[in-house]
Amino acid sequence: MSVETVARTSRSRSWWGWGWADAQPDEEECLALGALVPGTLPRPLPVPEVADLRIGRPAAEVPRSLAHRVTYDPLPRAAHAMGKAFRDVMRALRGRPGRIPDLVAHPRCDQDVSDLLEWAGEQRVAVIPYGGGSSVVGGVEYRGEAHRAVLSLDLTAMDRVLEIDTDSRAARVQAGVLGPALEDRLRPHGLTLRHFPQSFEFSTLGGWLATRAGGHYATGRTHIDDFTQSLRVVTPAGTSASWRLPASGAGPSPDRLFLGSEGTLGVITEAWMRLQERPRHKASAAVSFTDFHDALRAVRALAQSDLAPANCRLLDSGEAALSGATRDGCAVLVLGLESSTAPVDDRLGQALELARAHGGRADAEPADRGAPADDAVGAWRSAFLRMPYLRDGLARMGAVTETFETATTWDRLPALIDAVRTEVGAAAREATGHPAIVNCRLTHVYPDGAAPYFTVIAGGRPGDEVAVWDDLKAVAGDVLHRHRATITHHHAVGRDHRPQYDLQRPDPFAQALRAVKQTLDPGGILNPGVLIDS
Amino acid sequence: MSVETVARTSRSRSWWGWGWADAQPDEEECLALGALVPGTLPRPLPVPEVADLRIGRPAAEVPRSLAHRVTYDPLPRAAHAMGKAFRDVMRALRGRPGRIPDLVAHPRCDQDVSDLLEWAGEQRVAVIPYGGGSSVVGGVEYRGEAHRAVLSLDLTAMDRVLEIDTDSRAARVQAGVLGPALEDRLRPHGLTLRHFPQSFEFSTLGGWLATRAGGHYATGRTHIDDFTQSLRVVTPAGTSASWRLPASGAGPSPDRLFLGSEGTLGVITEAWMRLQERPRHKASAAVSFTDFHDALRAVRALAQSDLAPANCRLLDSGEAALSGATRDGCAVLVLGLESSTAPVDDRLGQALELARAHGGRADAEPADRGAPADDAVGAWRSAFLRMPYLRDGLARMGAVTETFETATTWDRLPALIDAVRTEVGAAAREATGHPAIVNCRLTHVYPDGAAPYFTVIAGGRPGDEVAVWDDLKAVAGDVLHRHRATITHHHAVGRDHRPQYDLQRPDPFAQALRAVKQTLDPGGILNPGVLIDS
Repeated sequence: MSVETVARTSRSRSWWGWGWADAQPDEEECLALGALVPGTLPRPLPVPEVADLRIGRPAAEVPRSLAHRVTYDPLPRAAHAMGKAFRDVMRALRGRPGRIPDLVAHPRCDQDVSDLLEWAGEQRVAVIPYGGGSSVVGGVEYRGEAHRAVLSLDLTAMDRVLEIDTDSRAARVQAGVLGPALEDRLRPHGLTLRHFPQSFEFSTLGGWLATRAGGHYATGRTHIDDFTQSLRVVTPAGTSASWRLPASGAGPSPDRLFLGSEGTLGVITEAWMRLQERPRHKASAAVSFTDFHDALRAVRALAQSDLAPANCRLLDSGEAALSGATRDGCAVLVLGLESSTAPVDDRLGQALELARAHGGRADAEPADRGAPADDAVGAWRSAFLRMPYLRDGLARMGAVTETFETATTWDRLPALIDAVRTEVGAAAREATGHPAIVNCRLTHVYPDGAAPYFTVIAGGRPGDEVAVWDDLKAVAGDVLHRHRATITHHHAVGRDHRPQYDLQRPDPFAQALRAVKQTLDPGGILNPGVLIDS
Repeated sequence: MSVETVARTSRSRSWWGWGWADAQPDEEECLALGALVPGTLPRPLPVPEVADLRIGRPAAEVPRSLAHRVTYDPLPRAAHAMGKAFRDVMRALRGRPGRIPDLVAHPRCDQDVSDLLEWAGEQRVAVIPYGGGSSVVGGVEYRGEAHRAVLSLDLTAMDRVLEIDTDSRAARVQAGVLGPALEDRLRPHGLTLRHFPQSFEFSTLGGWLATRAGGHYATGRTHIDDFTQSLRVVTPAGTSASWRLPASGAGPSPDRLFLGSEGTLGVITEAWMRLQERPRHKASAAVSFTDFHDALRAVRALAQSDLAPANCRLLDSGEAALSGATRDGCAVLVLGLESSTAPVDDRLGQALELARAHGGRADAEPADRGAPADDAVGAWRSAFLRMPYLRDGLARMGAVTETFETATTWDRLPALIDAVRTEVGAAAREATGHPAIVNCRLTHVYPDGAAPYFTVIAGGRPGDEVAVWDDLKAVAGDVLHRHRATITHHHAVGRDHRPQYDLQRPDPFAQALRAVKQTLDPGGILNPGVLIDS
């Protein structure tokens, strides 16, 4: 996996945009990107400087006993003000970021977390748990007035692998570890968490757990939920530590209450995670389809077989063109099989046979290999990891980019995809006066449904980009809601998805969640505004 | 599967013991069973009669508008007084059953359930949701004083399959359907829920959901949790209906709060369930091991491979002898592979190779076949389904039988199994003055651990059987707790596992659960005493 092997050096993170500062598109690349979208700016917006922000004095200071865990410096405060949604990046570019936190804390142990929560409770300070800061749903930003100050609780100093149980293939890991560091520490044992979200380099285990992250793999166990053996969560009402169990039928699962709680019920500080042997056999191939609906049927057949492809990513023709997989107007299915036990060529052969039976054309005979192919599959993988940087380059050209994802059952999927294309496309055109790009890919497939991922790119209203984005987000959310497709499959709810989440969630469950919040966070200090109101 | 093909006729259910009245062991069989256990009675206890119980007048009656859904007759009231634990059967045999409910209701729709809950709330009547009544943990019995009367809410009149979505392989099913009826309704569509707990014939979908039941299959998706697409739950605070979704990352899972709630938070009335194609290819084989610990290592290797055996049940020598699989003192691994897509002989061959590498001896070459083999595998399957009846025959001979199960990680498993054998065996001997049978099998295996299932049979204290059982249960629970093994993998908590469940559950989660209970069931009428105190 190329995501595993990116060199980790002393490069510095962009405070305003995705990832590494030196990987951001330069002016030339921005101009080239802008040329692809009608109505963009003649020149890129300048990269913003923290010094240009008016960052006030902090409205609260911790006592001396906690001072060594806290910083009030402008740069970390600015970098912790928002996540990495288009909305966040654009506000930074336009010099109008969200509320800058008053202080950033880097706890090193549970006691630090607990002490900080206690202080925050006494002082009516909002606490925003922060992992890699890659939220694209307003999950790490304070919006409100009810708190005296805002503390960004950055967990990345808690990044150790504390124990490895090779018999049970599990590890006890601190929540603040970033993806690459975690894999580095597991590799010498021949083990892997095998959880590779697109944000892998810039997100943490704790963030994955708090947001029920989806991994890179298309079928089978891919959500972080399934890899969780036990959780340790520091809440204002005490620390919750579940037992390490491969399975249990003892009451509702304690872990499932905290998985997806997005920092509103407690701070996940540690987890025992289920690991896997590193796959030794891999094979991949790309399959083209003239008709996208044929491709959907092929993917359904694959998801309902027991072939269990590790990758089964369907790109529509626009997505295939954008990523360089193909420009011939076809949809492309990127298929990959992996095993730690036995060669997978037979299984790939069977998968290709199934795809052909639904009108697919496999480009070449597959070969068992450890490295990605230098072809459509490889092209797509590189583009996948580069995508968020390109989004920032487009943002500097005044183009609005929104990516959103969902999941629904197979019976509803074709109509949903058609409706998103039509309605969001029309809304973008209306908002900007220009035709927009609306692409779709399937990222995860299940026997009973699939998770489509949409990319919308629209130019033409420079200066109003955030308003256009808000409009598109509202239209998209409305389409999903009318089609009973979840407001999020793996991006989380945060603040941006609240309206649709509130409609989707059954009312008695909302009542229950509010009661839990009131019990575990009676002061209402934890990530206020996310999921539920205090 | 023989469990699927049992004829469903007008046979009548035993009110006091397991299953069909006419399948209970006769006097001769009881005597033969008694001869296997030292210290049993010279003659079987008589089958108890409802007429011999002193069943009082009901302490509450429903208004006329609900009368057509309710019965006050002694037989159904007696039959709904308890589940089917040894403790329950023995109390019935000794003429000292638990509290007889005042009335039994058979709602036909959500409105009925809602109306009955409303009436019960007004009248301070305890409501015990009841599916097949197969609980072995005191899950369907009222113990307490705080309520004016007790209503057993029998869901079995809500037993329809309401919709089938063949595209997404899912069905909307009412919660009161028993296992065989559900499979009968799915079979014409080529589909199956493929969930076959030992209680399959006598338990309902709603019961499986409320108790997080484990299916027959050893690996992969076997828990009912994984087959649940959405739930409909009637609570005193309103009806919770989640969306049909193949997956979602929108907050903590609403369904996971109700899965395992054991009737304490609401009444599950309906669910969309994920289905599968019926397997077309099956192959099975038995493997013998001289050393049980070798067998454990073999099973771990299988669980950590990607061979995904449908059956991977390890019987220790005592269990193998009891079930007739073998009497040569060896442990036996019952292996089965299934697929709806392709022949499984290769995979079985690879599984046998792995087993041999750990000291196993495969009895014969496997063959792909649709029916169970007429050998160790078949013998074990028949014994498996007959087991609860034999337990009742033994009970009539005054022998105490306790079966309990748990799950733990591989690193802790060998020590746990040894400790249960030693400590529970010693406790049984001390309690009865006779050596006890303590057998173990693994019912489910996971990459990170396994679920051992223990059978304890002890004779020698006729008349005190319930007290002996209570002692053994306490000792067993204590061993599990000290080894950090869950108090239940798939039997649920009910009332009998409360002491250990209270210790196992993280305290902040207990606080959260109490808050949810208070919110959804403010009158504290739903299954009081189970999981949490009101």
